[in-house]
Amino acid sequence: MKLVTYELGGQARIGLVTDDRIADIGEALGVRSIRELLEKGRLSDVAKLKLKPERDLASVNLLPVIPDSLHYYCVGVNYADHLKEVQDAGIARATTKEPVFFIRFPETLVGHDQAMVMPKVSDSFDYEAELAVIIGKEGRYIDEADAMSHIAGYSCFNDGSIRDWQFHTGQVTPGKNFFASGSFGPWMVTADEIPDPTKLDIKLVLNGTALQHSNTSKLIFSIPKIISYVSAWLPLKPGDVIATGTPSGVGFSRKPPIFMKAGDICEVQIEKVGVLRNSIVKERAL
Amino acid sequence: MKLVTYELGGQARIGLVTDDRIADIGEALGVRSIRELLEKGRLSDVAKLKLKPERDLASVNLLPVIPDSLHYYCVGVNYADHLKEVQDAGIARATTKEPVFFIRFPETLVGHDQAMVMPKVSDSFDYEAELAVIIGKEGRYIDEADAMSHIAGYSCFNDGSIRDWQFHTGQVTPGKNFFASGSFGPWMVTADEIPDPTKLDIKLVLNGTALQHSNTSKLIFSIPKIISYVSAWLPLKPGDVIATGTPSGVGFSRKPPIFMKAGDICEVQIEKVGVLRNSIVKERAL
Repeated sequence: MKLVTYELGGQARIGLVTDDRIADIGEALGVRSIRELLEKGRLSDVAKLKLKPERDLASVNLLPVIPDSLHYYCVGVNYADHLKEVQDAGIARATTKEPVFFIRFPETLVGHDQAMVMPKVSDSFDYEAELAVIIGKEGRYIDEADAMSHIAGYSCFNDGSIRDWQFHTGQVTPGKNFFASGSFGPWMVTADEIPDPTKLDIKLVLNGTALQHSNTSKLIFSIPKIISYVSAWLPLKPGDVIATGTPSGVGFSRKPPIFMKAGDICEVQIEKVGVLRNSIVKERAL
Repeated sequence: MKLVTYELGGQARIGLVTDDRIADIGEALGVRSIRELLEKGRLSDVAKLKLKPERDLASVNLLPVIPDSLHYYCVGVNYADHLKEVQDAGIARATTKEPVFFIRFPETLVGHDQAMVMPKVSDSFDYEAELAVIIGKEGRYIDEADAMSHIAGYSCFNDGSIRDWQFHTGQVTPGKNFFASGSFGPWMVTADEIPDPTKLDIKLVLNGTALQHSNTSKLIFSIPKIISYVSAWLPLKPGDVIATGTPSGVGFSRKPPIFMKAGDICEVQIEKVGVLRNSIVKERAL
């Protein structure tokens, strides 16, 4: 199944997508968000609804798949070729025994077909194609062997980064937390449709040109490992999101660098998951 | 004024503290949290209520002052003597032109007199006394000259850190985000009572011994600077919290190191703000 969060009459709604049409599932199940659907353990009830699709997917504004997640965890440098290009660019990043993590706030993310915003204080707006894992079941100190059972589904994630602000200090927080600088969608594909997320082709396409192209088989730290690791700090919650890291080919490490500019169209394409497309706009200057 | 968030009958309530007694202000003002009080711009109405205190402060469980902040921003290495001790301990931290920032999630914080939890996966549980700034007024791209007008008040913050996990990689996220590992309270002292927050004595006292002792006059990056800097990424929101960094004397850089253990009593003491006291418990082992 493919589930979306969309806007109708100023309200966020959730829908089941079939053949590019949406059936609203929130009212029938008494839930207001995908997070609440997961919290209440109602995901398996969606297929039983047999609702008739009401509207075209293309006619609505999509929001981030989970706009109200309690935690957006992001893994850094989780593909070996990306680690190498970062080091080659002169950024001190060592090989580590544990995954690198940073956090994004919800307001940093937009949905499919919405504009990603380059802030007026920077021109170093870079893309990062990533597979996002969406947690369906709470847990702490999750064993790697049990980790896959905590996944509700997958989505595409563009970990849009303001590179100059990312490297102001050793902590990447600022460059990863600009308003509307990232994207998450278009939908959640439920885990039953992707029994093996370790063999997915992943691409970043900017204005029709593939700038990143890899496969999730090349993750340094596996999905079970990163789930297990995060769950040692805090209980993982339904609706939590873990962006699993980006492969090589990012803009800032290219010679010359490629940064996104107003009018660009940026796509994250992941096999079996979908295409997350966003236009780029420049925030109004002072 | 001193405002607290406390628990009564399983519900979070907010109160005005006078002479160690609490008057509930939530019902009278129709707000359920200090964040909502600030969002609705009702802080200045609290003094007009003339409510009679109903119960002893000592008789209630205090929660983190703002338990539902949208953003807990934390500044790293913001006292020169702390930067030096971190470097002396062999951690690569350069002097930077901009402040270092990381993020904590709400579940990592407890209130005054609650137990801070040393997780079963580590014995490297360290304290960090900090002055917390609480934002009262929304804003983006806030000028340093206007920054102080966005502050609603101040509180004490113990940026409890799981040091081995903090240094697994270059990003400190894991070590700063263990469940119930930090503390925030006991109350918010409104900004009118502290017109100059740059001259406050700050101490960390563990089991009666002062292990950190400095003054907010020694902050590397000023409060206006850090407010202005954060507000460039995201709109600052009422109830947002910025922990301003800790002075020297932390446990991990001592020779030999001092880490907290079960039964310890840890206090953050800040002049004109108050005393934030917590006991330490060890999470039940596997």
